[in-house]
Amino acid sequence: MINLEKIIEFMNIIAPPEQKEEGDNIGFLVGRINSEITKCVLCLDVTLEVIQESIELGAQLIISHHPLIYKPISSITDQTLQGKKILDVIKHNINIFSAHTNLDASEQGINDYIAGLLDLQNVQRFDTQDSAWQGGRIGEMKEPITLINLANKLITILQDNSIRLAGKRDKQVQKIAFISGGAGKTEYLRAAIDMGADCYISADFAHHTALEAYEKDFGLILCSHYCMERVILKRLRQFLSAQFKTVQFIISSKEKNPIDTI
Amino acid sequence: MINLEKIIEFMNIIAPPEQKEEGDNIGFLVGRINSEITKCVLCLDVTLEVIQESIELGAQLIISHHPLIYKPISSITDQTLQGKKILDVIKHNINIFSAHTNLDASEQGINDYIAGLLDLQNVQRFDTQDSAWQGGRIGEMKEPITLINLANKLITILQDNSIRLAGKRDKQVQKIAFISGGAGKTEYLRAAIDMGADCYISADFAHHTALEAYEKDFGLILCSHYCMERVILKRLRQFLSAQFKTVQFIISSKEKNPIDTI
Amino acid sequence: MINLEKIIEFMNIIAPPEQKEEGDNIGFLVGRINSEITKCVLCLDVTLEVIQESIELGAQLIISHHPLIYKPISSITDQTLQGKKILDVIKHNINIFSAHTNLDASEQGINDYIAGLLDLQNVQRFDTQDSAWQGGRIGEMKEPITLINLANKLITILQDNSIRLAGKRDKQVQKIAFISGGAGKTEYLRAAIDMGADCYISADFAHHTALEAYEKDFGLILCSHYCMERVILKRLRQFLSAQFKTVQFIISSKEKNPIDTI
Amino acid sequence: MINLEKIIEFMNIIAPPEQKEEGDNIGFLVGRINSEITKCVLCLDVTLEVIQESIELGAQLIISHHPLIYKPISSITDQTLQGKKILDVIKHNINIFSAHTNLDASEQGINDYIAGLLDLQNVQRFDTQDSAWQGGRIGEMKEPITLINLANKLITILQDNSIRLAGKRDKQVQKIAFISGGAGKTEYLRAAIDMGADCYISADFAHHTALEAYEKDFGLILCSHYCMERVILKRLRQFLSAQFKTVQFIISSKEKNPIDTI
Amino acid sequence: MINLEKIIEFMNIIAPPEQKEEGDNIGFLVGRINSEITKCVLCLDVTLEVIQESIELGAQLIISHHPLIYKPISSITDQTLQGKKILDVIKHNINIFSAHTNLDASEQGINDYIAGLLDLQNVQRFDTQDSAWQGGRIGEMKEPITLINLANKLITILQDNSIRLAGKRDKQVQKIAFISGGAGKTEYLRAAIDMGADCYISADFAHHTALEAYEKDFGLILCSHYCMERVILKRLRQFLSAQFKTVQFIISSKEKNPIDTI
Amino acid sequence: MINLEKIIEFMNIIAPPEQKEEGDNIGFLVGRINSEITKCVLCLDVTLEVIQESIELGAQLIISHHPLIYKPISSITDQTLQGKKILDVIKHNINIFSAHTNLDASEQGINDYIAGLLDLQNVQRFDTQDSAWQGGRIGEMKEPITLINLANKLITILQDNSIRLAGKRDKQVQKIAFISGGAGKTEYLRAAIDMGADCYISADFAHHTALEAYEKDFGLILCSHYCMERVILKRLRQFLSAQFKTVQFIISSKEKNPIDTI
Repeated sequence: MINLEKIIEFMNIIAPPEQKEEGDNIGFLVGRINSEITKCVLCLDVTLEVIQESIELGAQLIISHHPLIYKPISSITDQTLQGKKILDVIKHNINIFSAHTNLDASEQGINDYIAGLLDLQNVQRFDTQDSAWQGGRIGEMKEPITLINLANKLITILQDNSIRLAGKRDKQVQKIAFISGGAGKTEYLRAAIDMGADCYISADFAHHTALEAYEKDFGLILCSHYCMERVILKRLRQFLSAQFKTVQFIISSKEKNPIDTI
Repeated sequence: MINLEKIIEFMNIIAPPEQKEEGDNIGFLVGRINSEITKCVLCLDVTLEVIQESIELGAQLIISHHPLIYKPISSITDQTLQGKKILDVIKHNINIFSAHTNLDASEQGINDYIAGLLDLQNVQRFDTQDSAWQGGRIGEMKEPITLINLANKLITILQDNSIRLAGKRDKQVQKIAFISGGAGKTEYLRAAIDMGADCYISADFAHHTALEAYEKDFGLILCSHYCMERVILKRLRQFLSAQFKTVQFIISSKEKNPIDTI
Repeated sequence: MINLEKIIEFMNIIAPPEQKEEGDNIGFLVGRINSEITKCVLCLDVTLEVIQESIELGAQLIISHHPLIYKPISSITDQTLQGKKILDVIKHNINIFSAHTNLDASEQGINDYIAGLLDLQNVQRFDTQDSAWQGGRIGEMKEPITLINLANKLITILQDNSIRLAGKRDKQVQKIAFISGGAGKTEYLRAAIDMGADCYISADFAHHTALEAYEKDFGLILCSHYCMERVILKRLRQFLSAQFKTVQFIISSKEKNPIDTI
Repeated sequence: MINLEKIIEFMNIIAPPEQKEEGDNIGFLVGRINSEITKCVLCLDVTLEVIQESIELGAQLIISHHPLIYKPISSITDQTLQGKKILDVIKHNINIFSAHTNLDASEQGINDYIAGLLDLQNVQRFDTQDSAWQGGRIGEMKEPITLINLANKLITILQDNSIRLAGKRDKQVQKIAFISGGAGKTEYLRAAIDMGADCYISADFAHHTALEAYEKDFGLILCSHYCMERVILKRLRQFLSAQFKTVQFIISSKEKNPIDTI
Repeated sequence: MINLEKIIEFMNIIAPPEQKEEGDNIGFLVGRINSEITKCVLCLDVTLEVIQESIELGAQLIISHHPLIYKPISSITDQTLQGKKILDVIKHNINIFSAHTNLDASEQGINDYIAGLLDLQNVQRFDTQDSAWQGGRIGEMKEPITLINLANKLITILQDNSIRLAGKRDKQVQKIAFISGGAGKTEYLRAAIDMGADCYISADFAHHTALEAYEKDFGLILCSHYCMERVILKRLRQFLSAQFKTVQFIISSKEKNPIDTI
Repeated sequence: MINLEKIIEFMNIIAPPEQKEEGDNIGFLVGRINSEITKCVLCLDVTLEVIQESIELGAQLIISHHPLIYKPISSITDQTLQGKKILDVIKHNINIFSAHTNLDASEQGINDYIAGLLDLQNVQRFDTQDSAWQGGRIGEMKEPITLINLANKLITILQDNSIRLAGKRDKQVQKIAFISGGAGKTEYLRAAIDMGADCYISADFAHHTALEAYEKDFGLILCSHYCMERVILKRLRQFLSAQFKTVQFIISSKEKNPIDTI
């Protein structure tokens, strides 16, 4: 049994709050700081199913990547999906903690982890030049690789069977930029080009961004947002379990990718 | 035992939501719409003391004038006073409903009630000209009255022993404008003057507004915000008790004026 | 041989400029109004490949859905992809005309065409409530259909082998809202729910929108932006060929979906 | 007889203009810089009564705390109270000089003077953290004192018989923050709490600020704006009389608190 | 001897305040409404010389076209040119009244007067389409006239020896738009073109506006701002003298064009 | 024959891009960077006549002071004057390069050149204090000179027969501020006064600025925008011809001042 405050302190080392993107809403979002924790569910999103699972497991804490509250709210009633979730977790003494863009950005976080899985060299932080966040990563493969082979590598690493690409399949790429999650705006693509990358990887892209990559003969890999970020949960469980031996950390088994590839 | 939805429907007749001031946050703020209500506490503010009282009474509903959530919030934890309150009421199945500027404005609301207590004639709605709200009232005393006598009348009506005034004590006033609560900005004073009033009554005034009233030889009566609005609770209890005979409506006995006149 | 002005007049009937979304840049974008047209290429995007194809074909006009100039520009040089395209088309006397959100919206346009292909009944215009555009459509299938069957129908209709969905595959849907192209923001989903639809169809969705559809047990079909809009080109060629018998209208054969499903 | 310019130079030492709050309008507001001064009236506000008194006294200068012109003006006619005042003072060769937030803030100014009257130790400047002004003060009483006793002390020091408080009367307070005049917004209260104060003193508070102090078990003393600032006039007369022996400095005897405690 | 209020009432008929351009500051700007007027100076600008002239003449009123106060002011001291003027006029009991864009626009005003001097037919109000003001005029010469001849006509009508033009000297013009004073922005030129005019007349033009007129083969006549507006003073004196027989209305003889053609 | 890139590199030394005013649009505006240049036309504005002249001369480059594109554009068609120009130059393989506020500001630029022609001493950069640009100049004549004599000197130097002035003709001036082109706003006049100048020279002034100069007894010289900037072309031709001996640099002989002094 561990006091929630201890877990929060540790999470703030894993994903320092000051590394969040401006405007993000992270950290301790719902609950009481002195709660005693024996079971904690890890997930991407605090869905109704994840809450139900947590109640059934008797968990006192959910650590999510996406914040349960993002845009500030003016009421907490069962008249909204989000209000219903908050009522449920408070009623069942479940605390909510979210590590979002700070977990993307940190050295124990998602993008550094993916850089390691790709075995990248000379890894630097990556973002558009105007942004203070710099939560993505840019680095080099040891050897050039074709775009299609890099995409196939990611299918394995991220367990993402819905990966798509823009650009020539046989384009040789070596310097690779990426940001986990929904960094699909064209400005990220352009930042990757400006930084000398051969390829950019993220999720939630629109047509015109893919077209620009294609026309500029640049490599673009379009991941599933869900898979590209959920890859961190296992690693997070390792960190937390090693630190808090008396707490059971459980990756949600009810959560699934909301986008269903036919 | 009455379903919360029924009480909300009735409150929305007493204080129609569409009569609220733009930007106000009113109505059903915390809880579950299908809650069964047997006891309901009425108060001005949802203070810690009012919540404690409600818990002890076993109430399932608090109807307050001031909204528990006004500025939208990004977290609900015991690290803030407001978060602590929300956690407590949800934990104890207490629902929160607030009727604020709509209760000021409506025909069963505060300002109409005060107009009746003052026995005003030709009562019209009152507000600055630019505002769509028009929640205050303006009307005429049957006979002219000195400013000090009007102030003394309000001491009795509002049970407010901290009333102050600006302007000549023996000024004769007959046409009177007022807005319950903190409508102390100078623009309200000016609207009252423009409307031909002799006197304006509200709360939460600053020095420069009182000075302007004094220099313009206009009557200003500075009430306690607490007393000027809490006067409605008895009347509200009457309405609610008459409508819902099986529910006990209790005016908070723990609440008191936070401003203490020495 | 037909004067460009005549073709523009006809296109403005097919896709009236006043039906465009506010802020869109449409119509006659590059060239000289009195050009004589014998060959015209139809495409989704004015890519380098489409321009090359048009030059080789000896076309004097490209009619595209996506405008060649969208954000206003401050220079036209070969230092940018877009500048290079503009220099090329002007150099080769190729005029550019784009019908974008007005073609989405009009009665001869994309969304009405899709409504017909789906054999929808009671078809109304659809958009978020605050928007003046109302370029999408909402209507009813003759019989309820499962979400997966609707998705399969769209695979055929749009020749889109990359369609994905969010929500239960066997959910019965009958009332269907959709907007061709990249109307993937959550506000469109919410508008569809508010309008009583069972399902919303568009392209360029992000994870959190799909998740919201899934959690609200709503049907969401995620099309390819390319396929959902390019479906209009054949129909457009029919209209134009019927009207201008001496002009050859050619659907670009070089254009392809920039997003490549592995 | 002293040239106005000399008095302005001296006032700018007592209350350096650069210490004013951003947006304040201070200094030499009406008149001619080379006026010869033999009599000068000191006041809080340039009221009609103060002007009448100055005319009768034959004064050539009024030094006020509150600026005669605050919001910029577009006309100077007798159709407005302020215009009438300006016409009168110009007609009677009376110059106007105001030292406002710079007099609050300076080392010879109001807040430092009050700190001295309270015999505070370790006095620092005080304001909200975001503000560049820092015109208030925070410091420590030599011994803890109950809130009610501190309030009574202020009644004597400020000659203010309308002081009120929020919070427990017997709360022990030692570290005290304050800003002279109308710094009654909740953000000042919060700044005082963040700085570790036990109590905050100012004027022009609204109900919700007092309630927040009460609920957070913090001490709040609500002074009269008039008394809290007028306390400086005697001291100012001392400074000026010592510096300009040939000029008569007269504290207005016609000015009175516009707020009248019944 | 006439009360100022009567003159203001009459001026408000000649130049109705509601015809002013949004944001303009017009009307009774300095003084006392009940002043008795025997002499009144008329001028374009309230210059130091005009004030000196008015003092010497013993005038109690200056009626100017350009407002003495345009941008709101925060002080009235001899440290600024404008402050010095205001101090002087108040000291000498001179009232200031200005009729600016309302005098440009009204039926007894500048532009209608010029239309008459040019003997224009079918005179309509003129301004950019987005503006609510519509204070200029557009109308037709009875016969076409060359641009140079029209310019020469204006030299006589406006007594303006510094008139310049842009466009072909021998261009035939018949439909003419104009706005008295400094309406030299390119948007006015474009409005004139859109309204089918052949020529636009105003003052205070910049190079790029003249260039655009020249390149579009449009006629532009660049008057002196001073002459184009001062033409109204004689007419204004006629109106006022006819109405107020006991008041002497004097056109300033000290005022001159600040721009000196070498 | 010289590659355009070389000429651009040299122009960027003559008029460094980083010296442009914020928001200006300068440099390589239309064309292909690898164009081979044998003839180049120099001008103030890219007018239809200058383009025609360039086509007839067989020039491949126009270097203008005023940018052909200033406000960003959304179409390039013959329906606008500017579009027609762009179509023409692209069709005829004419490249456009503009050096605008950077040429005003640079050490080889317009204002430094004028400073030399006036033989000024202690020349410093000049602009309003808030501006980062500082492209004008301020300096001292060796001997004081009357305003009218300075104006006559400029008539000769700038070959400008339309120079006008504001202020006393016989005012002695020695310290002189100026900005080439349309820096006629009053703020520049005030900056010149604040910097201790006796006189300010620019173009495109309005009446109220001249009046302010006149009333403040300051010297103002109102040049022709055209003449004040076109003076640089000869010098620019010298620089360019010396650097690129195989290219013919021709000052446009078709361009003329669009403002025609009668």
